[in-house]
Amino acid sequence: MKKIINDPSSVVAESLRGFEMAHSDLVKVVPDPAVVVRADAPVRGKVAVISGGGSGHEPMHGGLVGAGMLDAACPGAVFTSPTPDQMQTAIEHTNGGAGVLLIVKNYTGDILNFETAAELAQAEDVEVRTIVIDDDVAVKDSLYTAGRRGVGGTVLLEKIVGAAAERGDDLAACHALAERVVANVRSMGLALAAPTVPHVGEPSFDLADDEMEVGIGIHGEPGRARMPVENADGIVARLLGPIVEDLPFAEGDRVLLFTNSMGGTPLIELYLAHGIAERLLVDRGVVVERRLVGPFVTSLEMQGMSLTLLKLDDEMRELWDAPVRTAALRWGS
Amino acid sequence: MKKIINDPSSVVAESLRGFEMAHSDLVKVVPDPAVVVRADAPVRGKVAVISGGGSGHEPMHGGLVGAGMLDAACPGAVFTSPTPDQMQTAIEHTNGGAGVLLIVKNYTGDILNFETAAELAQAEDVEVRTIVIDDDVAVKDSLYTAGRRGVGGTVLLEKIVGAAAERGDDLAACHALAERVVANVRSMGLALAAPTVPHVGEPSFDLADDEMEVGIGIHGEPGRARMPVENADGIVARLLGPIVEDLPFAEGDRVLLFTNSMGGTPLIELYLAHGIAERLLVDRGVVVERRLVGPFVTSLEMQGMSLTLLKLDDEMRELWDAPVRTAALRWGS
Repeated sequence: MKKIINDPSSVVAESLRGFEMAHSDLVKVVPDPAVVVRADAPVRGKVAVISGGGSGHEPMHGGLVGAGMLDAACPGAVFTSPTPDQMQTAIEHTNGGAGVLLIVKNYTGDILNFETAAELAQAEDVEVRTIVIDDDVAVKDSLYTAGRRGVGGTVLLEKIVGAAAERGDDLAACHALAERVVANVRSMGLALAAPTVPHVGEPSFDLADDEMEVGIGIHGEPGRARMPVENADGIVARLLGPIVEDLPFAEGDRVLLFTNSMGGTPLIELYLAHGIAERLLVDRGVVVERRLVGPFVTSLEMQGMSLTLLKLDDEMRELWDAPVRTAALRWGS
Repeated sequence: MKKIINDPSSVVAESLRGFEMAHSDLVKVVPDPAVVVRADAPVRGKVAVISGGGSGHEPMHGGLVGAGMLDAACPGAVFTSPTPDQMQTAIEHTNGGAGVLLIVKNYTGDILNFETAAELAQAEDVEVRTIVIDDDVAVKDSLYTAGRRGVGGTVLLEKIVGAAAERGDDLAACHALAERVVANVRSMGLALAAPTVPHVGEPSFDLADDEMEVGIGIHGEPGRARMPVENADGIVARLLGPIVEDLPFAEGDRVLLFTNSMGGTPLIELYLAHGIAERLLVDRGVVVERRLVGPFVTSLEMQGMSLTLLKLDDEMRELWDAPVRTAALRWGS
């Protein structure tokens, strides 16, 4: 295993320390239990939007904390759910009196722990609502999941709901909007080479030199099929087809297309793939109104990519365009 | 070779097409000869700032084109200098009547081709000045270089000079500022694993499972030493020491610290390394006033990192903070 680390057991804590030093204008890091909190939290009268999950998917979620997006992120160990006390700490630091929305990717551990934290907070009279995202069309049930997995759509959900909370929407409105985003977003991913989890020390799975895993999960969970590597046209069509057919996305639909690198796939390949995806959508009469291209939901150094499509309405588009100021996404004033 | 591409010979052109589709609000892409141009170019009365180099280092340089930074970028083939006709095209599309500043990384091919383009433009009465950046302290001469190589400092140079041009500084002032940045910036990099150039099809160099290359170039050129992999503390100290001693950076100096991923090193490791570097500087009494952390000067999927230190003065810091709107760097209004 070749990694720029000291000790596998301290990777997350050491990385968070560096993250805080790099972005002290945006965030503060509570060290124990570890939580990344918006620098100006709590924001009085605003719904607090909190997410979290295993580390190793950076910039998700810590890099998405800041004005117009998340109030806090709970980083678990690498590829491991955060604990209820992290979520409690996040709630304590961000609750501005208008309630808390928990954004949870659909993995069994995450669901259970966020549920526990929500119950504890409610017992202390904090109003808490939870939204579960399960946008991955690849497989029905999975290694760590009952139902579909939550993947790339999470970034879009966090941006749009974060903007709604920032403009002053109340908890019920934020939750209803989140449900609308979840209902309209679909993703699928693919791996060309496996990542290595620091405390494991060897690749998460084996792929032959000519193989790819279609429908891969963001922790390297098996997907739909293992097959010979195809060219970019083949790969993109293989991801986009099931996404489009699932919702389905139809002629005339307006969408946000998110082309995501799993980490090890460089931008030169990612933009190439994005161009193919966008042209395939145009061919189907789908209108691409917004794009996001880059490594946002990664799996350490895993080589591969995912596509996410969100069917937009006017409100979602406006909230997508609203100012955001985080380590990974930043635009507007 | 596992890559998301169609044909090695069309990777750059196809990638540029996707890049333009993703960022049509920021740039336009001239297809042949290929140039990425700021969407609103030419900007009348403004010095045009142009750079370029081999592809495979994305987001540098195309991702740095936009308001407050580059007016145009010339993308060569992967790890290959762009051609004079690309640079001529860039000048034609961006010359707003206030002259052109060419930012050239110190590689023999780049120097020669930019020189040819400058002479051709001057023959047509366009005022052209050139700044060569050679910030890599690792080796004196190199595979493609007489003198030091230009690496991570290029991004800082392009941001600061781009901001000066944007606020209306004239060509002489932009050039003098560029010389000041070059005189005050130093870098060094390191690789844990090699990249694969698409048209070559195999890794650019071999590293044993327990080896790293210290002082690596951004095209995989040999560095100072090949040695057993160290932990993060060791790696960061090995990069930072020669940088600090070279200028030298002294107690009380104010700096911008840029912690760069070569592509394959994920953010979780990069932030960990950044934290170590920043603490080492604090120990030396160096004041870290600004930071940049991320994959900005990459070598395809090469695993590794580089550190860049820029000694700041008030004007440089103000220009660093000035608004910028590009695919890769975006802040302010």
